[in-house]
Amino acid sequence: MKDSIRIWCPGSVSNINVGFDTLGFCLSDAGDEIIAERVSTAGVHLGALRGFPTPSNPSENVAYVAANAVYNAAGESKIGVKLNIDKRIKPGSGVGSSAASAVGAAFAVNELLGRPFSKQELLPFCIDGEAIASKTRHADNIAPALLGGFCLVVTQENHLAVNLETDLDLHYVVAHQQIEIKTSASRTVIPKEIPLKTSIKQWSNLGGFTAALFKNDIRLLVHCAKDFVVEVHRKSQIPHFSELNDLALKNGGLIFGISGSGPSVFALCEGKHNADNVKSAFDQLLRNKEHDYHLYCGAVAKNGVHELL
Amino acid sequence: MKDSIRIWCPGSVSNINVGFDTLGFCLSDAGDEIIAERVSTAGVHLGALRGFPTPSNPSENVAYVAANAVYNAAGESKIGVKLNIDKRIKPGSGVGSSAASAVGAAFAVNELLGRPFSKQELLPFCIDGEAIASKTRHADNIAPALLGGFCLVVTQENHLAVNLETDLDLHYVVAHQQIEIKTSASRTVIPKEIPLKTSIKQWSNLGGFTAALFKNDIRLLVHCAKDFVVEVHRKSQIPHFSELNDLALKNGGLIFGISGSGPSVFALCEGKHNADNVKSAFDQLLRNKEHDYHLYCGAVAKNGVHELL
Repeated sequence: MKDSIRIWCPGSVSNINVGFDTLGFCLSDAGDEIIAERVSTAGVHLGALRGFPTPSNPSENVAYVAANAVYNAAGESKIGVKLNIDKRIKPGSGVGSSAASAVGAAFAVNELLGRPFSKQELLPFCIDGEAIASKTRHADNIAPALLGGFCLVVTQENHLAVNLETDLDLHYVVAHQQIEIKTSASRTVIPKEIPLKTSIKQWSNLGGFTAALFKNDIRLLVHCAKDFVVEVHRKSQIPHFSELNDLALKNGGLIFGISGSGPSVFALCEGKHNADNVKSAFDQLLRNKEHDYHLYCGAVAKNGVHELL
Repeated sequence: MKDSIRIWCPGSVSNINVGFDTLGFCLSDAGDEIIAERVSTAGVHLGALRGFPTPSNPSENVAYVAANAVYNAAGESKIGVKLNIDKRIKPGSGVGSSAASAVGAAFAVNELLGRPFSKQELLPFCIDGEAIASKTRHADNIAPALLGGFCLVVTQENHLAVNLETDLDLHYVVAHQQIEIKTSASRTVIPKEIPLKTSIKQWSNLGGFTAALFKNDIRLLVHCAKDFVVEVHRKSQIPHFSELNDLALKNGGLIFGISGSGPSVFALCEGKHNADNVKSAFDQLLRNKEHDYHLYCGAVAKNGVHELL
């Protein structure tokens, strides 16, 4: 069994317009790194915390809570694991920062314990971790960070992650303007009841989006990737939303929307070339604006969390 | 070009618990028959009306209205078509009786006109027809009657039918107790607003159900085929609902629910053997009860409306 492993903990875009609280895809160029080491003292321990600040109090640390949940469920009492976290995704950016940490830590401990759980089985432990940050138990960032690609979370009493296979060559651009919107705060702008008619439109689109991935039907995918529920309430929180939207669609982007609860926005494109064009257009716009920003760009990652060799 | 064609106009089960107003599957042993003949007088005409009563006034007749919509859209002015309808599915039974007539008539006229439209393109004309009976423009029975198999309707401004391919060997049993619940009446019991939380559960399930068909994942399909929106309001309208539900699940049925707006109920089973067992169990129960009834049983039909040769 290994003494130390280095883990890639990918960020993700959740909601994707059409699947509020249930849909997400995995990023390939945004992620934390966790190095998990075996130590002599039993239990999970926090080691070095680098990059963006994360809580050093274990009970407030997403990674620790997720890792500890795995550790306890495995019934392991002798092994000690220390988590050294390089936090590279800024918390509150809307690309699944807390999910990345939770998934990476849960995965790391599971590996060092000899893999008592499958990736699917890690889901509830990751949710335990992310709930520390987001105050709700949802898994639309966790599922893609764990399994890769596009994932759907079936949210009944227990959460179930479903990978949505596709051969479409989809690339993303994510623009993160560095203002902070906490997930917990951004949820309060969404109404608690919605008209049944709106709901029917939304679920028929989610079904259509899901089918489009399996059918590799880009036209259907674009047709269905609309948000009738959340965007109207959240877009005013995001600077230059409409300009970015227009730029995305004018430069080869097919789908544009809010990433998670924002402030990041995303565009999905077919092929690398279109994504590069959208990225350039976003860059030109944002360099003249008031906020610091960061752009991510890459292929939707086929694999989720994994060991870096 | 043919002078006469005989058309199989299949019934269908809509909603399937998880996809209210958007999902349906095609039946193989329930359907109307339409014989469409070329006649010398231009336009669409109603001919012999057999079986269950249908309106002889063209503007009230679902089949006529759908056929006429196709005829007008095709811009055809010389050809005459007479529709002879053998109405075998009782109106108001909840297995897509009006959709069957609309789809069959639209398909028949399209064939006699030399097929100016694809099956997909017939969708809006069929909706024109069915709206005469159901008072709303929805297509969750029309899509499967038209395309076969499991279908999803993306319900934005325009409707779009999406076939959900699967290799699962699914068979249905439908129990129709002969009481009448009009679609238009049964819709009034459903609330106009639903909690966002409920809606999220429902759309995540619809996404999961859709994925399960493509992935041929029977466990996921069953897990997701739940109704959080409609069943609770409608089941009291259906005699012996709970007994039928229990019998279905005890005899090899995997999914049970209300077919469309009722009063029919359906069970979905894997393999013919299980469906036969459920059918027998339903038969034994209902033969001692107060209502006349009819049972349908067969494989989910791969093909929708088609010519009978």
